[in-house]
Amino acid sequence: MAKIAKVAVLGASGYTGSECVRLLLRHPQVKIALLTADRRAGQEMREVFPQFSPFALPKLVPIDSLDWAALGLDLVFCALPHATTQRVVKDLLAKAPLTKVVDLSADFRLGDPLAYARWYGHEHHAPDLQKEAVYGLVEVHRERIRNSRLIANPGCYTTCAQLPLVPLIKEGAIDLDEIVVDAKSGMTGAGRAAKENMLFSEVSEGFHAYGAGHHRHMAELDQEFSLAAGRDVIVTFTPHLVPMNRGILSTIYVRGVADKSPQDLHEVLSRTYRDEPFVHVLPFGEMPQTRHVRGSNMTFIGVVSDRIKGRAIIAAALDNLVKGASGQAVQNMNLVLGFPETLGLEQVALFP
Amino acid sequence: MAKIAKVAVLGASGYTGSECVRLLLRHPQVKIALLTADRRAGQEMREVFPQFSPFALPKLVPIDSLDWAALGLDLVFCALPHATTQRVVKDLLAKAPLTKVVDLSADFRLGDPLAYARWYGHEHHAPDLQKEAVYGLVEVHRERIRNSRLIANPGCYTTCAQLPLVPLIKEGAIDLDEIVVDAKSGMTGAGRAAKENMLFSEVSEGFHAYGAGHHRHMAELDQEFSLAAGRDVIVTFTPHLVPMNRGILSTIYVRGVADKSPQDLHEVLSRTYRDEPFVHVLPFGEMPQTRHVRGSNMTFIGVVSDRIKGRAIIAAALDNLVKGASGQAVQNMNLVLGFPETLGLEQVALFP
Amino acid sequence: MAKIAKVAVLGASGYTGSECVRLLLRHPQVKIALLTADRRAGQEMREVFPQFSPFALPKLVPIDSLDWAALGLDLVFCALPHATTQRVVKDLLAKAPLTKVVDLSADFRLGDPLAYARWYGHEHHAPDLQKEAVYGLVEVHRERIRNSRLIANPGCYTTCAQLPLVPLIKEGAIDLDEIVVDAKSGMTGAGRAAKENMLFSEVSEGFHAYGAGHHRHMAELDQEFSLAAGRDVIVTFTPHLVPMNRGILSTIYVRGVADKSPQDLHEVLSRTYRDEPFVHVLPFGEMPQTRHVRGSNMTFIGVVSDRIKGRAIIAAALDNLVKGASGQAVQNMNLVLGFPETLGLEQVALFP
Amino acid sequence: MAKIAKVAVLGASGYTGSECVRLLLRHPQVKIALLTADRRAGQEMREVFPQFSPFALPKLVPIDSLDWAALGLDLVFCALPHATTQRVVKDLLAKAPLTKVVDLSADFRLGDPLAYARWYGHEHHAPDLQKEAVYGLVEVHRERIRNSRLIANPGCYTTCAQLPLVPLIKEGAIDLDEIVVDAKSGMTGAGRAAKENMLFSEVSEGFHAYGAGHHRHMAELDQEFSLAAGRDVIVTFTPHLVPMNRGILSTIYVRGVADKSPQDLHEVLSRTYRDEPFVHVLPFGEMPQTRHVRGSNMTFIGVVSDRIKGRAIIAAALDNLVKGASGQAVQNMNLVLGFPETLGLEQVALFP
Repeated sequence: MAKIAKVAVLGASGYTGSECVRLLLRHPQVKIALLTADRRAGQEMREVFPQFSPFALPKLVPIDSLDWAALGLDLVFCALPHATTQRVVKDLLAKAPLTKVVDLSADFRLGDPLAYARWYGHEHHAPDLQKEAVYGLVEVHRERIRNSRLIANPGCYTTCAQLPLVPLIKEGAIDLDEIVVDAKSGMTGAGRAAKENMLFSEVSEGFHAYGAGHHRHMAELDQEFSLAAGRDVIVTFTPHLVPMNRGILSTIYVRGVADKSPQDLHEVLSRTYRDEPFVHVLPFGEMPQTRHVRGSNMTFIGVVSDRIKGRAIIAAALDNLVKGASGQAVQNMNLVLGFPETLGLEQVALFP
Repeated sequence: MAKIAKVAVLGASGYTGSECVRLLLRHPQVKIALLTADRRAGQEMREVFPQFSPFALPKLVPIDSLDWAALGLDLVFCALPHATTQRVVKDLLAKAPLTKVVDLSADFRLGDPLAYARWYGHEHHAPDLQKEAVYGLVEVHRERIRNSRLIANPGCYTTCAQLPLVPLIKEGAIDLDEIVVDAKSGMTGAGRAAKENMLFSEVSEGFHAYGAGHHRHMAELDQEFSLAAGRDVIVTFTPHLVPMNRGILSTIYVRGVADKSPQDLHEVLSRTYRDEPFVHVLPFGEMPQTRHVRGSNMTFIGVVSDRIKGRAIIAAALDNLVKGASGQAVQNMNLVLGFPETLGLEQVALFP
Repeated sequence: MAKIAKVAVLGASGYTGSECVRLLLRHPQVKIALLTADRRAGQEMREVFPQFSPFALPKLVPIDSLDWAALGLDLVFCALPHATTQRVVKDLLAKAPLTKVVDLSADFRLGDPLAYARWYGHEHHAPDLQKEAVYGLVEVHRERIRNSRLIANPGCYTTCAQLPLVPLIKEGAIDLDEIVVDAKSGMTGAGRAAKENMLFSEVSEGFHAYGAGHHRHMAELDQEFSLAAGRDVIVTFTPHLVPMNRGILSTIYVRGVADKSPQDLHEVLSRTYRDEPFVHVLPFGEMPQTRHVRGSNMTFIGVVSDRIKGRAIIAAALDNLVKGASGQAVQNMNLVLGFPETLGLEQVALFP
Repeated sequence: MAKIAKVAVLGASGYTGSECVRLLLRHPQVKIALLTADRRAGQEMREVFPQFSPFALPKLVPIDSLDWAALGLDLVFCALPHATTQRVVKDLLAKAPLTKVVDLSADFRLGDPLAYARWYGHEHHAPDLQKEAVYGLVEVHRERIRNSRLIANPGCYTTCAQLPLVPLIKEGAIDLDEIVVDAKSGMTGAGRAAKENMLFSEVSEGFHAYGAGHHRHMAELDQEFSLAAGRDVIVTFTPHLVPMNRGILSTIYVRGVADKSPQDLHEVLSRTYRDEPFVHVLPFGEMPQTRHVRGSNMTFIGVVSDRIKGRAIIAAALDNLVKGASGQAVQNMNLVLGFPETLGLEQVALFP
């Protein structure tokens, strides 16, 4: 297929926005037609991200100046902050109903209006779109995504917990009441906003948990795990910050039900992902490292036996900006535009 | 008390050895009389650790050249590798029975000869001393330590798990069959041996678990937790490596028994450690960070509620080279030599 | 001397302020009587810097609420931003003329009103105090400092360039027209203000020069080098940012005049600093590392021969927050209050 | 051109070897037919570098087992240690004279047998090949490379100094007797050998110079700068180690001759590199950062005025494993095999 898709990246001055640009520049069937960034509007992308200096890219424009209908975009990556997103996507799809949207924010991830209101403290501003949106975890919802117009790209933490857990939950292989997810993320997951607690000197040479007990990502896990189980499932989830730029590692503690051994759990995951291009299950007993997926769209999963009989320790590693955000977004784009799913996502991880 | 104790550091070319030297140089009642380092014997300490250039220290000597009886040492810090340690301590205490020993290796931590043989694959070479040795977690065994001659300084990971858990186990406040310890350590915990997987380029910008399911530190936890409980307790324990030099954070998942709420668990810990100089319990709901104890002998402990009723998330942070090794060793020395327990350990953490 | 001095730290929520607190907590003849921090006023120091949780410290107060005369302070460390400083110090010394001030900002470092106006773009707001202030590089101006009331604590970059260069300039040993200072600093040198370009993700895993050709620190170097030379001296100076928290390394390129060899230059420095407690000259041919002075008040200096005859490469390393700021400030305090110069500054460097 | 070249990587267990593999996996006209690694022979590449787990690659074999003639390789990347290289390449080209070789070691970089003997302390073992070898800095020697069989891929430090300096030297624009190159490199430049001074804990949170005054890379600079100048040129060069994985920044101090201003120097560089795909000259006054070329084959160059009239500060940044090693090697391969020069090298830098 020779068609070149016209795409936009809204919010190109943040990390997920720039990561979309990095990937799209090497995608053979895409033209970046538009980049927006309100605070940096009027600047060249190279002033905001000097790594793009050698490339020709459109100048950054403010989002409110746009005539969506006239732009004739095939697809829009929306990397805007929470709240702004709902307003922008509603307006965009009203004016250009044929444009596809892959939204990287959390705004359309929760399908239940009540759950949304409970976690975010207000009603959703675009409830019809909320209903229409498809949750974009490709390995779980591939067929629904293919025919959708609005895709809610999953969160980085939740992708890293769902890929190892959803197959085990669906298969009824683990005790649903004793799942502990201890998650560790690099700093880019926190975005590019200038905050004291994200300064190099505050973060380097140290480690800590944050949001323990009440992180918003939990809502997304509840929804997807409950869907997979056919009953309510809630898990214990603690995020931590690692002094590194990219990468999430989830260490997951589970108990096999009845006679399911850790090896059985490994077998379920190996079977599920045998033909998936972006999920790789390591041999039983090996653990993944975030550095080995850095910059790539891969997820590595490992399973080991706990010494307590019946319990397994599962770890999954991905790059929060790629499979955890922009790479998954490009994968979703490939699905909805009918491109081969791996196009533009063949990067080998950058290690060391 | 004006007496100046004559002390030695065996294995001064490693990190726990040099950390003993750092602390002892500021201890007002100690004179460093001897430093050994086999591979670097004949060199000055400044050639091995240039930070000591401005200080007068004895030259490094080989351990086999020593006449223990003639040296008249009050106390020896033994920071030698596993196996070597047993041989050296046995010889030392045979020749100089009045010298006290604080051993930083794992060789004397397990009191049970069978447990030792099972975890280490051979019989202990000094079974009598193994019996005599006192496990040196000061906050738990203070009185026994005070009168002992041979102290087995606890491991860094295990100190960071015991300080938050032992009081809860003793109090019967938590379910003993559902304890998960997800531990994260800086790189100095792995020592100074030149290994490929510890190179900067292999470790920087990444995160991973290792030894999941079968780490030797578990033997120490089993012993101390079972002692505290009065029954066998084994826990799930997974160590991880953080790209930082110093610090351990343990994230611990527990379920309160019967009616014990997370606040109740917090109360037990606050009460236990109210007067301890080196354990600080944060206000309920706050989590510790390793960077805030770096270089100090402090342990910070935090407790938060999990959203699953009855479950709590507890985190403890310490500097693996100080409270997790050499600081605790100096604390033990202070006890056995009759010095004030905090002497030489008043350093404020170095942050940022 | 048993007197306990009452001191204040103005601007205690920044890094140089907190570093003063860290050092003063261990100073045996000082009581921290007052801590200010405008943005964080009303909070406890532990909320701003959790490492102080175990210590009793005064609550943070706003600076404008203070009655300087009534406070009866012996000495004030002023760690406030540029401009604010002039106003505050003027007011303070008007109301409490017997209080000593060690100012850590750049406001009183330039003695020449014209130079000040040229570099800062406006007239000084306290020209009389500017005249009175003594430049606080102890190793160069010790005697003048001892009797002064207002000390302008030198900058971190400039301390790291002056300590190796001033003795060589004074001695007439190097060509004054060919001095190149290539300086590299850790991130704490940039302070704690929340700026995008100081975020962990922007700074980690990378290296760059900034302010090349026109950094304000140059004014201070011009003044002190010209003073040492007895003629105008300007040097080439380029600062760089290193992805680490603490440390400055200056690599300095010089040409010996006439017959002065690199060994001769080394001899001048060794002789100058033989009895200085906080400057250590390494053996000829060895180079210093910032990590070996981390957390300490030491400066390490090394000299090697360039392969181009007559030229030498000199490197100096210090901790920008200690000898480059708060340690030097305490050293200055010790001088003006008549304490032993090294009191409270005996910390051994924290490595690794 | 549809031909697929059969290539080998000798020494695939090191960083430059694995980086060749990373780049070649995405090169559309190359098949990796052979990987060698003596110490790891018999293992899969995924055991040595887990990032390659999802890819099919030949098993690692020992180099001595190979029948070069039978292999029918189009090109060999030789990423072996010094000394070994000479022996292997001599043998290889004797048995398979039509195979092309891109050598990433220093063994064939010096054209002068006397210079080689002086810097390496022994005679070259393959003097005929030394004569035949072409120095592979593409931007300088492109046409000679195109027709050569044996290419000596330049060093990383020297590439980063030559790209900014050679055009200025050729043009006679700068004083040849006053060039100072202050270079800073990430840790991967030191390779993957397990050495104490390259451990994470030794390198993190610190900065230092090494090999000041006598680094072997100087021989390569002498040769190429003298060639460019038509007279002997030797420069002052000091390498430093930065706690990061990838990247070299050279800060270069020069004086324009006669009437050449810094802007003139910038103009020379801009003109020289206008059409080069892998060298990008930033607008005058801007400085490059290593992070913005990470993982890419780009070199960024910046020029600023020094405040001392007539002097300029030039900085160049590249990724030592890409343009400084394996990317440049692939660029050389593209030239000698007649592929488009940029093929397989279009990666956008990975930032953050």
